This record gives sequence, structure tokens and C-alpha cells, in this order.
Amino acid sequence: MKDLESISDVMADIGRRARIASQTLAFASADSKRAALMAAADAVSAHRDEIIAANARDLEFGREKGLSAAMMDRLMLDGSRIESIVEGLRAVAGQDDPVGQVLAEWDRPSGLHISRVRTPLGVIGVIYESRPNVTADAGALCLKSGNAVILRGGSESFHSSQAIYACLVEGLRAAGLPEDAIQLVPTRDRAAVTELLTMTDSVDVIVPRGGKGLVGLVQREARVPVFAHLEGIVHIYLDKAADPQKALDVVLNAKTRRTGICGAAECLLVHEEIAEDLGRSVIEALIDAGVEVHAEGSLAGIDGTTPATETDWGREYLDMVIAARTVPDIDAAIAHIRRYGSNHTDCIVTEDEAAVARFFERLDSAILMHNASTQFADGGEFGMGAEIGIATGKMHARGPVGAEQLTSFKYLVRGNGTVRP
Amino acid sequence: MKDLESISDVMADIGRRARIASQTLAFASADSKRAALMAAADAVSAHRDEIIAANARDLEFGREKGLSAAMMDRLMLDGSRIESIVEGLRAVAGQDDPVGQVLAEWDRPSGLHISRVRTPLGVIGVIYESRPNVTADAGALCLKSGNAVILRGGSESFHSSQAIYACLVEGLRAAGLPEDAIQLVPTRDRAAVTELLTMTDSVDVIVPRGGKGLVGLVQREARVPVFAHLEGIVHIYLDKAADPQKALDVVLNAKTRRTGICGAAECLLVHEEIAEDLGRSVIEALIDAGVEVHAEGSLAGIDGTTPATETDWGREYLDMVIAARTVPDIDAAIAHIRRYGSNHTDCIVTEDEAAVARFFERLDSAILMHNASTQFADGGEFGMGAEIGIATGKMHARGPVGAEQLTSFKYLVRGNGTVRP
Repeated sequence: MKDLESISDVMADIGRRARIASQTLAFASADSKRAALMAAADAVSAHRDEIIAANARDLEFGREKGLSAAMMDRLMLDGSRIESIVEGLRAVAGQDDPVGQVLAEWDRPSGLHISRVRTPLGVIGVIYESRPNVTADAGALCLKSGNAVILRGGSESFHSSQAIYACLVEGLRAAGLPEDAIQLVPTRDRAAVTELLTMTDSVDVIVPRGGKGLVGLVQREARVPVFAHLEGIVHIYLDKAADPQKALDVVLNAKTRRTGICGAAECLLVHEEIAEDLGRSVIEALIDAGVEVHAEGSLAGIDGTTPATETDWGREYLDMVIAARTVPDIDAAIAHIRRYGSNHTDCIVTEDEAAVARFFERLDSAILMHNASTQFADGGEFGMGAEIGIATGKMHARGPVGAEQLTSFKYLVRGNGTVRP
Repeated sequence: MKDLESISDVMADIGRRARIASQTLAFASADSKRAALMAAADAVSAHRDEIIAANARDLEFGREKGLSAAMMDRLMLDGSRIESIVEGLRAVAGQDDPVGQVLAEWDRPSGLHISRVRTPLGVIGVIYESRPNVTADAGALCLKSGNAVILRGGSESFHSSQAIYACLVEGLRAAGLPEDAIQLVPTRDRAAVTELLTMTDSVDVIVPRGGKGLVGLVQREARVPVFAHLEGIVHIYLDKAADPQKALDVVLNAKTRRTGICGAAECLLVHEEIAEDLGRSVIEALIDAGVEVHAEGSLAGIDGTTPATETDWGREYLDMVIAARTVPDIDAAIAHIRRYGSNHTDCIVTEDEAAVARFFERLDSAILMHNASTQFADGGEFGMGAEIGIATGKMHARGPVGAEQLTSFKYLVRGNGTVRP
């Protein structure tokens, strides 16, 4: 499978088989999909030792390749991580089936009865990096939503993903569903990604899961729609009417709970009237917590800060670093976020309802928060059970993408020999 | 404005102004949008003579250019057509405002209250052919949904569209809304279309309105999402349990009421068990009504039919012509529609509920009908008030596209200093 032609053939065949499977899956019963996911969970549990052995091969390959400690950690599977894969599969199995749900129905004066019902999208392509658990999460959400899926895992997690994938196929087989409903690209060759991005006949949506490099590549090269966010440049605006304790709690949690996730805060905007008191105490608390603060204006006078430069605005650190500046009013905060934000998640801390309304109305991030940590930007925390990713585009899916967001709809119209005058 | 560079500059400027206007429009009040549409309706009514004079210049240009009678008819405006433009504007004004509607809201155990509210998409580009009324319809629906719009009318209707457009601007001005909310491309040069299709920074969606040539061009060349249907290859399946009278009524209406619209029937599939009786009488009725029937199998034996060839399947005649064939069972009908259909509108005529369920479940057209004329495939008939087009894609908008379908949503999350453990 070294030459391009054979990879192109392999991918075209995978695409054809996915399209055919998707036609059966579209009307697979809720029970059969649930049974497949429960059986897959049992299989992961039963094959736990094989999965850990496969993961050991990946870890060895990673060490030879000189992967960073963070990458190695993302790659690693142990008993508790396998247990959470099992729980994740069971959680998705237990969710309501979105397919066939009646979204709306109404009668018309013509005598027609019209209903709008959920349908699967068709075939989803998922391209991810080192985390092998995405194999299970993405496979499960696509199956739940009646979509066929083509998984393309990172080359680092090749063996781990294969081992988990084998369990998903066991589940499909146990439930009598087409095995091609979930396919894993069987090669590490990058050319397979290029193919997948341009298979407009057999792929309906691509979901990339990974760093900015991967997502940017997918967004540039895909010829099919993409559900993704390139960056989470998350802002918190401390309004002049902010409650001091809430401000401290929210900013500290939003920045430091986990710095590597897309909902982590990257920039603090402080109303200038409170810069000297609340602004100072929040920044001092951040510094005490080990955060490097790149500050501008009067905030730059606080001991322990580093002066901010133009490159600090609109920057996603994904680390214990935050940018901070003062703004003369809420409109300046809104203007800053419009200019430098990434439409992912932005937050206002205030006790002033009019300020909340203005912030909520005039900004158009996928998620806008009031007095809450931006680390809640997550499908699980939203109550969706699981997510395949978070989308910042405005078309179709937006915000956390769960099973429901992987569906479309069709109109069913019933008459009684009804004709149009 | 002859050289490419200046058109590119003109379009970039239009795009920038649309994007800026869209930010204000996104939170314009329902009242101001309603007032703008009512004032625009009054202006069209008041400037009726100027519009008819402008239209006369277009008609003269059309005659010189040798446009077909059908094209000339689409282009022509008279008192009653202007009256229906006025009524259309008032109808859209009277609809509920979709922006800000709460689509769902729920509480989480974390203490968060999450709501999902409708937002405009941003900037819509509309590219259309000869019908000047699209200027008013598309402008009104985009304004209602809080979107800025860039209109690019056909060169044939250049002066008529300008005159109607002037009335829309009068309405915006009267309501104190930004005039850039609705812009009309001020040149007939085709290069403006090419520009519009690739303005990914300033255009969020393109809606083409016109024939297959225009829509195909837009789908091929657009670098932004497109809401459209290329063809309406509409099928009617007469099941063995069809009621004869309903079959006759539905087929005749679906084929002959208007042959040039996308919901007109193009292919009749007849269960072989009823081919000799009901099939024959439906086809004889079609022939009596002046329809040319391209028939296959036993249906080809009916007097007055022409033998069908392979090119008749999947063909959109948009004329008094229909293809007809027998099928051994409902699954063969479904297979034929999957292979040759265009996912627009397809219909089953039967009294057998199990057959309806199978047809509705196993096909994935945007609109599926039972015992109803396919000519009901229309936003107005669906109760949407008006439509900007019909989409057959599965992403975002599907079926008739009204104001509601021109929106996205955002999540608003309220806490009380809530942090994530």
C-alpha cells in the first residue's frame, strides 16, 4: 500500500462500502444500535489485555519517535482509561435515539399534514491524532445517529485504535448491523487523509479532532463540509459590576483547571474602573497560582506581570499563560472579542443584567457565558452525553457536537388525494 | 467598471459593508425590521409607474436580445405582479421574527442554565436570473432573519431590479436600519458573480435562484456553502394498493398544473399488478391532457405512448412530458428513486400504511409525500410565508428555505460564579 494509486483505490472502496452501509443504518432500529453499542462495550471490557498490549506497541513506537511527554500521556491506555471507554460506550447506548424524532408537525388549510423528522447525515469522516479513545467515542456517536463512519486515527495510536476498532465490529456483528457501518482506515499513509478530504461522493461531513495543525489542514483542503473549531481563543470580561468572589472563582477555574483544552481562558478584559482593585486581586491570584500574565495598560504595573505585546491578543496559549488588558467599557470589550476572538466561548462576569443582555446580544460566539467558568464548554457538561467535537462555524452544527447534531431532517407530507389548485 | 480589478474592488467593498451591516442587523428589533418591510411595500406601491417604466427598458433589451417567450414572461411586470410583490413584502413583515427565539433551554446539575437561541447566519448572497420579484422576496426574507444580503440579479432584469431595490432601501431608511443591509450589485458584468462565489470572508451562504446552468455553476465554483437544488427529478409511485381516483387526481395535478416548477412530476412508477388497469387509465388520462408519455415495459403497449430510452430515467423535462415504467414491487420503486432521483420530492400513492412507512423510511428525499400532489413542494404551501428557494443538500437548510432556515443559533449559559470541579 505504498503507491498512491492503491491508496486511492482503497479509500474509494471504503467510501463506497460506507455509503451502502449508511443506507441500511438510516433505518436501523434504535434497539439494534443500542445492542451493538452494549456489545461493543462488553468486547472492550473482555479484550482489555489485548488492547493494553497493542497500546504498548504504540508507546514503544512513540518513544522511538521521541514524542513529547504530553503526547505520550494522550496516547497511553491503562485499566482506568479502558474502563472509561467502556462507560462512554454504555452512556451513548443509553441516550435517546435521535433518528426518526418528530421535530415539528402541523396541518395546512390544503388538508396536508406535514412533519419534519430527524434523519442521519449519511457518512461521517473522522480524522484524529493520538488519543485512541476517539475511536470508540466517534464510532459510537456516529452509529447512534445512524451514520456510517470512516475513522482515520493518528499513526501514533495505530495498534491501539485497531484493537478498539475490532471490539466495535464485534458489537455490530452481534447486533446484526452491517460491519461497514464503522470502518478504520487500514494504513498510516498520510495520502489516505488527502483522499478522505476530497471524497465528495461518499463522505458528507469531516470532523477533525486534534491540534491547530491538523484542523487547519482539514479546513483548507476539505472539499466536503467540516465541523470543527480551529482555536478556542476564550475571553473573560470582568465588568465594572462584577462580583469579586465570582470573578476570582471563575477566572482561576477557567484558566487553571486544565490549560490544554479549548475552553480554557486565554485573555482577560478588565473594566478600567475596577482595574486597580478587583483587576489587581484577580491577577495576583493568577500569579500566585503559577500563571504567567502578559499585561497591558495599568495592569502592567502589577508586580510579577510581563508586558503584553500585540501578538498576545488573539493568541491561544493552551498553557499557564494569560493575556490581560483594561477596557474603557463593555462596548470596547465586545469590540476586542469581535476582533481577536474565535467565536468559540466567551464570558462576562457581572451582576448587571443589562450588561449581560448586551454581551449576549452583540457577540456571536457559539457559547456565551455569564458568571460561569468557560471550562464548561463541553458536550458532556451540556448534557449531551458525549461529543465528537466543538464547532465554531455557523452552518448546521454549532457548539458541542453530539449525536443529535450529526443528523439532518426530511419532511413527510400526508394527503388524501390532495391536489394544488 | 469594465476591468476585472475594479469589479473585484467593488465586490470587496460591498462585502465589507455587508459584514458591518450584519453586525447591527443581528440585534435589530423585530419592530424595526417589520417597519422597514412595511415601508418598502408602501414604496413599491407608490413607485409602481417608475417600476413599470424600468421594466419596459428591460423588456426592450430582452426583445433585442431575442429572449424566449417564457423568459420574456418571467421578466414582465404589470400592475397585478407589482401588487403581489407588495403583498409578499407585507406577508413577510407579518411573520414572527425568528431571531432571538429560544429553541431549547435546560438546567444542569452543575447549576448552569443553558439556552439555545436563534441568530442570523450573517451575510447571504443571492444570485438569480430573470424574475425581478426575487429582488423583493430575497431581500425581505434576509432582512426578516437579520441577515445582510448581497443581491445579484440577472442582466435581463437589471433596471426592474434597480427600481424595486430602491424601494427596499427607502424602507430601510424609514426604519433607521443600515442601508447596507440590502445591497444590489451595480454591474451586469459576470465577473461580479465569480467574485461573490469566492468571498469567504464576507459571505456566509449563497442561494442561487434559476435554471440548472446557473445552479450548477454556483455549486461548482462557490467556496462558501450553497443552499440549492440542482434539479427536481420528482417521482410518483403508484402502489398496488393505490386508490384509483386519488392516483388520477394526484398524477394529473403533479404533472400538468405547472410543468416548469421544480415540484412537477417527471417520472411515474407503476406496480406491475395494476399496470393493466390503473396504470393504463392514468396514462390515457395524461395523454388526453396533452402529456407526452415515454413508456417502458407493458405500459409501452398503450396507444399514444412513445418508447422510453435509458436517457428518460433521471430526466427533468420541465415540460408536458413524463417517463413511465412498471416495477415489480415497492422495493424496486425505492431502488429506482435512489438511483435516478435528485432528493427533492417523491410521492407514493397507496392505501397501505405499511407501504407508506417503508417509502418514508427508506427514501431520503428532502420532501416525501403520500397521496398528495408534488406541486405542494413550496415554502408558501408549507406555511412558511415565503421561500428563498428549495434545498436538497442535507446540511443546515433542507426543503423549502424560509426566514427560519436562514438562521443559526448560539448557546447562552448562565451561572452564579459556577466553576467546573
